[in-house]
Amino acid sequence: MTDITQHRLATRYGQPDIEVPNNWGPVLDELLNHRSVRSFSEAPLPEGTIEALIAAAQSAASSSNLQVWSVVAVQDKARKARLAGFAGNQAHIHQAPLFLVWLADLSRVARLGARQQVELEALPYIESLLLGTIDAALAAQNAVVALESLGLGSVYIGAIRNDIEAVAQELDLPPQVYPVFGLCVGHPSVERPAQVKPRLPQAAVLHHEKYSVTHEASAIEQYDARLGAFYRQEGLKAAGWSEQVIARLRGVASLNGREHLVDELKRLGFGLR
Amino acid sequence: MTDITQHRLATRYGQPDIEVPNNWGPVLDELLNHRSVRSFSEAPLPEGTIEALIAAAQSAASSSNLQVWSVVAVQDKARKARLAGFAGNQAHIHQAPLFLVWLADLSRVARLGARQQVELEALPYIESLLLGTIDAALAAQNAVVALESLGLGSVYIGAIRNDIEAVAQELDLPPQVYPVFGLCVGHPSVERPAQVKPRLPQAAVLHHEKYSVTHEASAIEQYDARLGAFYRQEGLKAAGWSEQVIARLRGVASLNGREHLVDELKRLGFGLR
Repeated sequence: MTDITQHRLATRYGQPDIEVPNNWGPVLDELLNHRSVRSFSEAPLPEGTIEALIAAAQSAASSSNLQVWSVVAVQDKARKARLAGFAGNQAHIHQAPLFLVWLADLSRVARLGARQQVELEALPYIESLLLGTIDAALAAQNAVVALESLGLGSVYIGAIRNDIEAVAQELDLPPQVYPVFGLCVGHPSVERPAQVKPRLPQAAVLHHEKYSVTHEASAIEQYDARLGAFYRQEGLKAAGWSEQVIARLRGVASLNGREHLVDELKRLGFGLR
Repeated sequence: MTDITQHRLATRYGQPDIEVPNNWGPVLDELLNHRSVRSFSEAPLPEGTIEALIAAAQSAASSSNLQVWSVVAVQDKARKARLAGFAGNQAHIHQAPLFLVWLADLSRVARLGARQQVELEALPYIESLLLGTIDAALAAQNAVVALESLGLGSVYIGAIRNDIEAVAQELDLPPQVYPVFGLCVGHPSVERPAQVKPRLPQAAVLHHEKYSVTHEASAIEQYDARLGAFYRQEGLKAAGWSEQVIARLRGVASLNGREHLVDELKRLGFGLR
């Protein structure tokens, strides 16, 4: 194991006792080095960046090759500001030169059916919502890997789901399309570098043959301490993971509008059967 | 642009007129080279492979760091065979030495709340289903990039959703957990190499500032011809994309059980409010 790999694993897991394969290479080192970037420089993106990211995104798997996703690339400052307003007004949406809105998009196949006068009876099911959501997520994650290979940084914006109807109106989305998440993209700020966030020990998320909670409590206890230390190092309030989870999920208020998603999705034309 | 990059773009898009940034590098070449592998050699996986893939998976972003996903690594032949039986009995599930079942997992945070006697009121919403589904998809896609960097191949198995209750029983899943998709992992067979699948032109999926269908019809027409030619080259029935989409979505029968997902998810403990 190289020193870099050792360092990457330690940053993610503390002192891990993970054996890694001999052919672990630079791609794995890069993947482990991911961090969410919330502070961007003013440098514009190199020509062709968006097209490169979308080529990577389209290279991800798509269920039955249906390709039920799309993406809107927003660079106009005023539009970014309006979208930020719908999504908790996060400063990095304003700041990033590029805001990608990833869409679960059943409308393209629906238009195709309509042109051929065939009713697509399999569409109005919650399965289709999942298809589009999964397709969009796989595509976006490939774009994230791609943009990091280009020296860029990004952060996902789940808050784009706070008010999907407002976003749909702003972006002229047809029926049967919803914004799954946003992605701020830009050059990471040098003054405020982002840090790699520690994650749960593998024992808490990886199961062999059957699901088991045997190691869960001790894994979480260890992680609470490690994440608390990480936040203190960052000069932040030193809550562990358990406290954060409970703060985030104990009340409906923290959903910030997403408690209305079912009704909103229905109004946007999703069947959800 | 190097010859490799030119080749990668041509394989994905035909003759593209895409400008790519100057610092396009080997990671982007690798991402574009993805293919779904459905035929595996009998070679076992190198020691530490699973742990490496999960390290990559956990390095993907997670909404609010909730980490509402888990994965079950199945290597037992009999269990793989039973899971295949629930998922359309696809031969590659039997053949691959490793079958990863990716889970949207609200149960870990639910247990955490229960231990601290706090009710997590934000959980029983469709938003939580999306959170877990997206977290699992981002994680899995990182694992796919990682395994390809190790010379391995994979294919996603959406058919694991055909009967999520049978899968839940087989894997001892607690309430509020559902299998999002499976992933067959192994060494690609040399005799039956997988091909890169052409995708829709970027004009059909990438929108600037607002959603627009202006270029859609011509993009799909072009893609129908290109995908048809690809299938004929592969010795397969030469349907274009439009025909495939309609065949896949016109009837409920092609959902293979996924038309019952709402009821099944509810019985598995998801609120879906």
